[in-house]
Amino acid sequence: MSSTQGFAPSVNARAGILVDDLAANAQALRVSVTTGAAGERCIDLGSNVPGGLEAGRRLGEICMGGLGTVTLTSSSGLERWPLGVVVHSSNPVVACLGSQYAGWTITDDSGFFALGSGPARALSRVEELYKELGYIDHHNKGALVIEGDKAPPPGVATKVAEACGIKTSDLTVLYAPTGSLAGTVQIAARVLEVALHKAHALHFDLGNIVDGYGVAPIAPPIPDFVKAMGRTNDAIIYGGRIHLFVRGTDEAAKKLADALPSNTCSIYGKPFAEIFASVNGDFYKIDASLFSPAVVTVSNLDTGSSFHAGKLAPDIVDASFR
Amino acid sequence: MSSTQGFAPSVNARAGILVDDLAANAQALRVSVTTGAAGERCIDLGSNVPGGLEAGRRLGEICMGGLGTVTLTSSSGLERWPLGVVVHSSNPVVACLGSQYAGWTITDDSGFFALGSGPARALSRVEELYKELGYIDHHNKGALVIEGDKAPPPGVATKVAEACGIKTSDLTVLYAPTGSLAGTVQIAARVLEVALHKAHALHFDLGNIVDGYGVAPIAPPIPDFVKAMGRTNDAIIYGGRIHLFVRGTDEAAKKLADALPSNTCSIYGKPFAEIFASVNGDFYKIDASLFSPAVVTVSNLDTGSSFHAGKLAPDIVDASFR
Amino acid sequence: MSSTQGFAPSVNARAGILVDDLAANAQALRVSVTTGAAGERCIDLGSNVPGGLEAGRRLGEICMGGLGTVTLTSSSGLERWPLGVVVHSSNPVVACLGSQYAGWTITDDSGFFALGSGPARALSRVEELYKELGYIDHHNKGALVIEGDKAPPPGVATKVAEACGIKTSDLTVLYAPTGSLAGTVQIAARVLEVALHKAHALHFDLGNIVDGYGVAPIAPPIPDFVKAMGRTNDAIIYGGRIHLFVRGTDEAAKKLADALPSNTCSIYGKPFAEIFASVNGDFYKIDASLFSPAVVTVSNLDTGSSFHAGKLAPDIVDASFR
Repeated sequence: MSSTQGFAPSVNARAGILVDDLAANAQALRVSVTTGAAGERCIDLGSNVPGGLEAGRRLGEICMGGLGTVTLTSSSGLERWPLGVVVHSSNPVVACLGSQYAGWTITDDSGFFALGSGPARALSRVEELYKELGYIDHHNKGALVIEGDKAPPPGVATKVAEACGIKTSDLTVLYAPTGSLAGTVQIAARVLEVALHKAHALHFDLGNIVDGYGVAPIAPPIPDFVKAMGRTNDAIIYGGRIHLFVRGTDEAAKKLADALPSNTCSIYGKPFAEIFASVNGDFYKIDASLFSPAVVTVSNLDTGSSFHAGKLAPDIVDASFR
Repeated sequence: MSSTQGFAPSVNARAGILVDDLAANAQALRVSVTTGAAGERCIDLGSNVPGGLEAGRRLGEICMGGLGTVTLTSSSGLERWPLGVVVHSSNPVVACLGSQYAGWTITDDSGFFALGSGPARALSRVEELYKELGYIDHHNKGALVIEGDKAPPPGVATKVAEACGIKTSDLTVLYAPTGSLAGTVQIAARVLEVALHKAHALHFDLGNIVDGYGVAPIAPPIPDFVKAMGRTNDAIIYGGRIHLFVRGTDEAAKKLADALPSNTCSIYGKPFAEIFASVNGDFYKIDASLFSPAVVTVSNLDTGSSFHAGKLAPDIVDASFR
Repeated sequence: MSSTQGFAPSVNARAGILVDDLAANAQALRVSVTTGAAGERCIDLGSNVPGGLEAGRRLGEICMGGLGTVTLTSSSGLERWPLGVVVHSSNPVVACLGSQYAGWTITDDSGFFALGSGPARALSRVEELYKELGYIDHHNKGALVIEGDKAPPPGVATKVAEACGIKTSDLTVLYAPTGSLAGTVQIAARVLEVALHKAHALHFDLGNIVDGYGVAPIAPPIPDFVKAMGRTNDAIIYGGRIHLFVRGTDEAAKKLADALPSNTCSIYGKPFAEIFASVNGDFYKIDASLFSPAVVTVSNLDTGSSFHAGKLAPDIVDASFR
C-alpha cells in the first residue's frame, strides 16, 4: 500500500495475500497448484480438480483485489435457490472495475483466447478503461484470473508477465471453468461489478460511487458451456440485487437507479442461453444494457434520498436453474 | 486478558488489536489516521474521508471491546431495506454496557461536547453504571469512540487520557458523524446494546443475561443531523430484533420480554425525527423506554421457556428511510 | 497437511489450530481449560461455565476438523426462530463423516458412556465406517468432542489417547451438554452431517458427494436432557435444509433427493421428544431414516440437473421450541 498512489492501495499486494493463503490450503480446498512451463504459478480451481464453493468464494475476493468480501448466504432472496453470495466493497470502483472486470482480451497465434480478469489488469493497463479510472497499481507480483478450463500456454504467460512489468515467476494464473463450482460462485460474485460497469456505460461519474454491496443466487453448475453461461448470467440478470451509495444530485442518482436494472433492456425476459443462441454465440451482439442486476437501490449520501427500481424474476431463474 | 479480573478479559486489549488492524488498512477502508496535538491517535471514519460500510462494521466491533461480532447481512427482515447488521456478543453485559454504550459525557470550557463510547469508558469508569457492572479494565492503551464530525481538542484528549490512567500517546480517538456510512452502521450495531440498557433500566438482574444477538437494517445516511438521528433510531426502534438468553425465573424472563420492545412506550409510532423535534432537540426529555428494538425474544436457560413480544413496523421504517 | 495422504489434509492438524485459538480466548468465550488427571487438556464449553453461541459455533468447526465453516445467521428460514447456523464444507465426506459424526462409543468399567465425535476418531479409526471412507489421519495431537456434562475419567482419557496413537498430554477433550448454548449450536451444525450419514445408509456412493451446505435454526437450550435432545433433533428434522452437489447419473441423484428428507420416515410428524419417550429412551429403536434435514436439494454436477424434496414444518418446530 504505497501512499504515492494517493487514493487506493495495491490490488495485487492485497490479492497476493489471499492467493498465497489459497495455495497454502490447496489440499483442503481441493485446488491444484503447479508451476507452468514459463515459470508462472498456475492454480486450477475446478477443471481437473473438484474445487468447490469455498474455492470460488476466495476466487471472488481475489478478483476484487482484496478490496471486498464475498460471503456465502442461505438467503439469496430466491425461494427455491437460497444458496447465494453477498458481495461488498468499500471501494467498488477500484475493486470491481479496476480489478474484477473481465476486460483484458488475451490471445496468441496458437488460437488461445481468454478474457483476463483480476488484479493483474491494473499492472498491464492495456485497456482504455484505465485512463478513465486513473488507477495505477505498482507491485512486483501479479494475479490473473481466467474463466476457463486451462492455463494459458507458456508464450501467453510470458507476454502477460511482460505486459504487467513483472517476472513470469511472479505471475499467478488462476482458472476455473464457467460450469464448475468455483466458476459459478466467482461469476455470481460479479453482481456488483456488472452494475458498476453499466453505470460507467451510462456515463455516471464513477468518482461519485462511494460504496456498494450486492447479493445473487449461486447457479447450479452445468458442464455445457452455453448453458453454464446462461445460468450464471440469469443468476444476476433475473436474481441479483444491489445497493449503491453515491454522491451528487438526486436527479443523477434517480436517473442511474431507473436506468440500471436489467428490465430496462428490450430483450429482458428470456433465459440468457436462448438470447446467446439467437446471436449465434456472438457475445458482443447482445445489447449490453442487459448485463445488470434485477433489483437496484441507489442512495444519495449528499441528500439522503434513495431510489428503487427493478424487480426479481424468480420464475425465469427457476426455469434456468431447474 | 488478565486472570485477576476474574470474569471478563480486557476490552481495551481486545479492541486494541482491531484498532491497529483498522489503522493498518486505512487506505483500503478510506479512513484517515493522524496524530493529534496532544499526541493522541485520531481516526476519522467518515467526516473528511469517505469511510464506508466496512469501516462502520469494524467500528461497531471496536465499540464492543472486541467481545462481539458485527456482520453485514442482506436479510435485515425489512423488504425494501435488506442491508443490515447482525450483532452478537457472548458477553453482552460487558461488551454492550461495559464498552459500547455512549455513557461518558465529555465536555470542556471551549464548548466541546461529546458522548464517549467504547472501551476507554471501562478505564475511566466515571459513570455510575460501573459500580453496578463490577467490571474494571486495566490496560495501558485505550480507545474512545465519538459519534461526531471531529476529534476532541487537545485539552480534552489529555483529560480523557488522564481519566483513563494512560499516556495521551496511548489513546486512540475514533469518530464518524451520525449521517456517514460508518456512523449509520455503528449505530445499527447498537441494537443489542439498547436492549441491554433498557433491561438495566427495568431492573432486570444483569448477571442473569448470558448471551444475545440482534439484527437491524442499516439506515441510508443523510447529512442533516436531526434526520440522521431520526433514521438511525428508527432502524432500531421500528426495524430491530433481538434474542436474549437469560437465567432466573420464567416470571422474570416473561416480564422482561413484555416490557422490552419499543411498542411498550406511549410515544411509539411516530418517526423519531418528529419526536425529537417535538421536544426541541432535548434528548433527555424523550421517554427512554422508546429506545429499544421492535421485536424481542427472551429464552430462559434455566427452564427452556421462550417469550416473544413486539413486532416490526416496516411502514414506519419506509417512511423514515425513503 | 501431508501430501502423502493423497486426498485430504489432516483433520486433527486443522482442528488443532482452532482448539488452540479457543483456549487462548477462553476468558472471552467463557469456557474453561483445565488439565485432567491423566495429563489431557479438558475444555468445558457449557457444563460448569456459561459458554455461549460463539463457543458452540467454534465447537462445530472443530467437530468438522477445520474443513468447514459454521456461521450464525439471522435468517434460519423459521419465522419465529430466525437465529440459526449456516454450515458449509468443501469436503463434506471427510469433514462430516470422517470427523464430525458421533460414531465412537466410549465406555469403561465405571459406567462412563459417551459417543465421541470430532477429529480424534480419524486417528483411532475403531469404527467400521473408516474402511469405507478410506480416510486416515496421521497427526501427533488429537481433539475429541463429547456431548455431555463432564470430561471422561482418567482411565478413559488414557485409553482414548492410546487408541489414537498419541500421548495423553497431546489429547484435548471438549465437552458441552445437549441443553447448553454451545451444545445446541454444535448440534444444529450437524444438519449437513446427518444428511451425509443418511446418504451413506442409502448406499449412495460417497465418492460422488463433492460439496454441500446446510442451514438450521438454533433450538433454545433447555436443561432437561430428553427435552434438549428433542428440540435439537427437531431443529434439523423439521427445520433443517441442505443442498448437496454430487456426481453420477441423474437417476442416482434423484433417488437420493427423494429418499433423503425426514418426511420419508413413517414416524415423521411427531416431536422428537415424544418419539424418544415412546421407545423408552432407546435411541437405536428409532427408525434411523428420521435423522435427516426437512428440505433437500441435490444438484448433479455431471448433468446440471437439480432435484428438490421435503418441506419445512414450522408448526412442529414452534411446538417443540416454545
